[in-house]
Amino acid sequence: MPGTPSARYAYLGPEGTFTEAALRTLPAATHAELVPAASVGVALDLVRRGEVHAAMVAMENSVEGAVSQTLDELASGDPLVITREVLLPVEFALLVRPGTGLAQVGTVASHPHAQPQVRRWLAANLPRSAWQPASSNAEAARLVARGEVDAALAGEFAAARYGLVVAARQIHDTPGAVTRFVLVARPAPAPPPTGADKTSLVAFLAADHTGALLEILTEFAVRGVNLTRIESRPTGRGLGRYSFSVDAEGHVLDPRLGEALMGLRRICADVRFLGSYPRADGEVPAVRPGTSDEQFRDAQAWLAQVREQGTG
Amino acid sequence: MPGTPSARYAYLGPEGTFTEAALRTLPAATHAELVPAASVGVALDLVRRGEVHAAMVAMENSVEGAVSQTLDELASGDPLVITREVLLPVEFALLVRPGTGLAQVGTVASHPHAQPQVRRWLAANLPRSAWQPASSNAEAARLVARGEVDAALAGEFAAARYGLVVAARQIHDTPGAVTRFVLVARPAPAPPPTGADKTSLVAFLAADHTGALLEILTEFAVRGVNLTRIESRPTGRGLGRYSFSVDAEGHVLDPRLGEALMGLRRICADVRFLGSYPRADGEVPAVRPGTSDEQFRDAQAWLAQVREQGTG
Amino acid sequence: MPGTPSARYAYLGPEGTFTEAALRTLPAATHAELVPAASVGVALDLVRRGEVHAAMVAMENSVEGAVSQTLDELASGDPLVITREVLLPVEFALLVRPGTGLAQVGTVASHPHAQPQVRRWLAANLPRSAWQPASSNAEAARLVARGEVDAALAGEFAAARYGLVVAARQIHDTPGAVTRFVLVARPAPAPPPTGADKTSLVAFLAADHTGALLEILTEFAVRGVNLTRIESRPTGRGLGRYSFSVDAEGHVLDPRLGEALMGLRRICADVRFLGSYPRADGEVPAVRPGTSDEQFRDAQAWLAQVREQGTG
Amino acid sequence: MPGTPSARYAYLGPEGTFTEAALRTLPAATHAELVPAASVGVALDLVRRGEVHAAMVAMENSVEGAVSQTLDELASGDPLVITREVLLPVEFALLVRPGTGLAQVGTVASHPHAQPQVRRWLAANLPRSAWQPASSNAEAARLVARGEVDAALAGEFAAARYGLVVAARQIHDTPGAVTRFVLVARPAPAPPPTGADKTSLVAFLAADHTGALLEILTEFAVRGVNLTRIESRPTGRGLGRYSFSVDAEGHVLDPRLGEALMGLRRICADVRFLGSYPRADGEVPAVRPGTSDEQFRDAQAWLAQVREQGTG
Repeated sequence: MPGTPSARYAYLGPEGTFTEAALRTLPAATHAELVPAASVGVALDLVRRGEVHAAMVAMENSVEGAVSQTLDELASGDPLVITREVLLPVEFALLVRPGTGLAQVGTVASHPHAQPQVRRWLAANLPRSAWQPASSNAEAARLVARGEVDAALAGEFAAARYGLVVAARQIHDTPGAVTRFVLVARPAPAPPPTGADKTSLVAFLAADHTGALLEILTEFAVRGVNLTRIESRPTGRGLGRYSFSVDAEGHVLDPRLGEALMGLRRICADVRFLGSYPRADGEVPAVRPGTSDEQFRDAQAWLAQVREQGTG
Repeated sequence: MPGTPSARYAYLGPEGTFTEAALRTLPAATHAELVPAASVGVALDLVRRGEVHAAMVAMENSVEGAVSQTLDELASGDPLVITREVLLPVEFALLVRPGTGLAQVGTVASHPHAQPQVRRWLAANLPRSAWQPASSNAEAARLVARGEVDAALAGEFAAARYGLVVAARQIHDTPGAVTRFVLVARPAPAPPPTGADKTSLVAFLAADHTGALLEILTEFAVRGVNLTRIESRPTGRGLGRYSFSVDAEGHVLDPRLGEALMGLRRICADVRFLGSYPRADGEVPAVRPGTSDEQFRDAQAWLAQVREQGTG
Repeated sequence: MPGTPSARYAYLGPEGTFTEAALRTLPAATHAELVPAASVGVALDLVRRGEVHAAMVAMENSVEGAVSQTLDELASGDPLVITREVLLPVEFALLVRPGTGLAQVGTVASHPHAQPQVRRWLAANLPRSAWQPASSNAEAARLVARGEVDAALAGEFAAARYGLVVAARQIHDTPGAVTRFVLVARPAPAPPPTGADKTSLVAFLAADHTGALLEILTEFAVRGVNLTRIESRPTGRGLGRYSFSVDAEGHVLDPRLGEALMGLRRICADVRFLGSYPRADGEVPAVRPGTSDEQFRDAQAWLAQVREQGTG
Repeated sequence: MPGTPSARYAYLGPEGTFTEAALRTLPAATHAELVPAASVGVALDLVRRGEVHAAMVAMENSVEGAVSQTLDELASGDPLVITREVLLPVEFALLVRPGTGLAQVGTVASHPHAQPQVRRWLAANLPRSAWQPASSNAEAARLVARGEVDAALAGEFAAARYGLVVAARQIHDTPGAVTRFVLVARPAPAPPPTGADKTSLVAFLAADHTGALLEILTEFAVRGVNLTRIESRPTGRGLGRYSFSVDAEGHVLDPRLGEALMGLRRICADVRFLGSYPRADGEVPAVRPGTSDEQFRDAQAWLAQVREQGTG
């Protein structure tokens, strides 16, 4: 259905957000209906209720870190799975109404995540301006259009949508910053392995067990599975109680990852699978000696023979 | 100087924030001058410049998790150390102007951190209200006082400050939620060990080394040092590049913690010490056999004898 | 066939050895033909060639340690498996020709393994006697019978066989010493699990890999499999090149042991399975949380569902 | 004193053993008095009583493995330390009385350790000969000289001593076999580090603790200390109770080895230091990043500063 006229995708709106830009990089989105949602939670609930095929949401940013709301929404409620990831360079522009000069900018609005990424630029170029939070960068642009603030920090692509112009480009403090978005759908078998895949999951620690994180990492390490992301999140049951949100190299159908997942399942209070999907960077993971698919298959055949015949 | 009339402490303002409430729990704050700061960064810079003795800032919340801005500010810039921690129950009230009834509340403002903690209450009690971000909960109260929004989510103590009244009490979704605040000062020798202490630090991974987190945890585990908090933070040098912000049980003067810190120092690109201080919960850690202070001292004496005499 | 008149079992001879005594503890040996062999290697070759059903050989002694010859013979040549183990207290007697008094004993013979176990007794009771090696304790008794030495250190049961008498009983230095014997047969499916089983194997390290033993132990530890014996043996390819002979708690059909064996198979140059068999001491192993049979089955079912449906 | 006319060294006698040959490779032995001892235990007791300066004893063989008697004698009794190691190729010759041809050899004597190393040669060349144990290979040569057996397996150098001739040379089954000998003295400060050193020790496990070996190996691994030998030995207190005899790369004065030793001391029931000494092969160990002497010193200085000033 994706790619057909009837396909529907949700994203964190309003129109003009980086999330919409990420969604538009997908060929399947070209002819689809794109549905802005008021929050990550709303976007994911549209998926859960079957009102859209999938939703694009931000997962992490190379400067600001994890998007807690996305992690928490994926970790609770009805299960969802990630089927794609998209990496997008973060390139903030300062958007103003036509005719506004930098000297006239007294107030600047943006999503709170954006502010720390442009702090130094603002200090150097708009030292006297006041910052105001908005619920999204596109909403900030909308506030500019309505005259409620003087300028918005947003993607350049938002200017046309809100009748604004670009007063300054590429104003983020850290060059090369990247945001990672994921496309989230209802549970279904993962797309087939490509050889360069990631698997996301949430591991809930069993009780209040010191050393539990070390045990979790060991389950991965023993099977030669590398992690590309690990975030602790509070479980809401008190300080010091965590779950861990993890991205692992490999696909749920890989034997090494399958065995590691079973190990987690046994030692954790709960494990929530969040999908296997192709890596956006296409990087093929190095496989440690002793953990290749072929060695897993050989070992399984050997064990079967030992069990049946008493020798391998 | 703390506790004398001339002592000055900064906190995340404006007046009426939970952070101010945390600061006021300290006896030393009773007669001190309390200085509101516009942001965590501003509060810590006041400390760095010597304009205040210390600053109280929020570190983590049992529902929302780490306060990224605090972690990032402590991890960079001139060194600072934590000297105290304060745990404060999170008890949101809905503050309105006198005479406003619940039915008349169309807009609700709060710091973005507060909104997820009261989401269910809002959905049940103010289903048609719109939420607006504010730079702090106290600022939200100020906006109510000025008539810009109808209600604020804030601590009950903020009502008097802004001439508001409490329309609803204890409206947070998760009972028992707690926020942890820390008092931050310029580097100085840590307060003496109490037997129930914590040590905070940031470990910056060396290069892009798979398994580095496992190595860090092993350095602690081998010396029997338990961790009570671990957060990954992006280094800003690309996705997948992390530092780890850690709280460990024990004091920097404990031999087991000292040896673990030296191990980190050797394997990490950098380690930033963030202080040893008494635990707010007073919990005395269990010491694993083989890692007591006495066993460390005995082993050191034994090694010295082996080195000098060829036998222990 | 065992237990029928036609069953044949080999043991380290000649008649009167502790190994024969161990073999005679088996009900199946009562009516079987017992075949003395000149060495452990000869006994095992009789099994390999199908000339006997099984052979009893000594594996380890609580004072002298592993019987290297048995370990090495099991680790090379055509595969064999252990099907039973027998624990026998070591109770040496001093055997002499009738009429010989202690004062007349000038020479004492025994297998070299026996000598260190009675060293202190000999020093105290026969300080002027000279010790001579024999290829077995029973052979020592035979030498006494032939008048070539004055006394033999052997099991009391050997006296009748060689027309000798017991000059002293229970003369071993360490009370409670035990020798462990194993019954070795050609490869066949292991006897069914009893709930208190052991599995023996040899792990040959891959190349000259520092840390390889740590990796091997970790493969067991991660699956909660305890080891009851571990011996390093040279591979014959130079100092520092080892294989490890291991007894693990559990049965090859146990899921946790099966997964550990596959792990070894993947990281080792070779793994030789040496059988699963009931523990002679009947001790039921403690199973670490997260490694029970049921948890392994649950995790496998969960993974299958995640793979098929995208959620567990 | 070593090297002076009055220096005295013990070795496993009688004259003509490989151990004597190993001792004679030391310059210090040239003008010293060499004292044959009847057993390893006797040789080491001569050292303990101060009757000799040191004793040369065999430690391990690349084919036969550890010399259990040496390990056990070093692990108990008054402490001793290793000060040198010597590697000697194992080259067995078949020694006979002048005039004896191979066809006339009916009996062959040797130390029991030698027999497995020439088994295949004997089967191929003297298939009808009978083997007899002797308390040393040199003793076997003495028995040939006295006419009690026809041939001895011994070092070629033993021929002259006992008036024998060489009937066959280099008859060991495994080419390149090596025996490692150690020179043992009373405790004294270790010889200074050469950069290519070994340290020997015995680790006695605390109680009956599953996973204890894994813990011991981890203490070494965390400090980047490689092991070149590890042998389990029974403690004599029942099957399954072990101590571990270990050779580690490095010198007791190296910081990484010192810290590992202290770790062992804390977690083991007992640790017996057996000396630091130059490696016979002169191989300089690779030092893992994070464990160099300099990094240990830097980390120590850093910790001292953190403790004194609150920042490193």
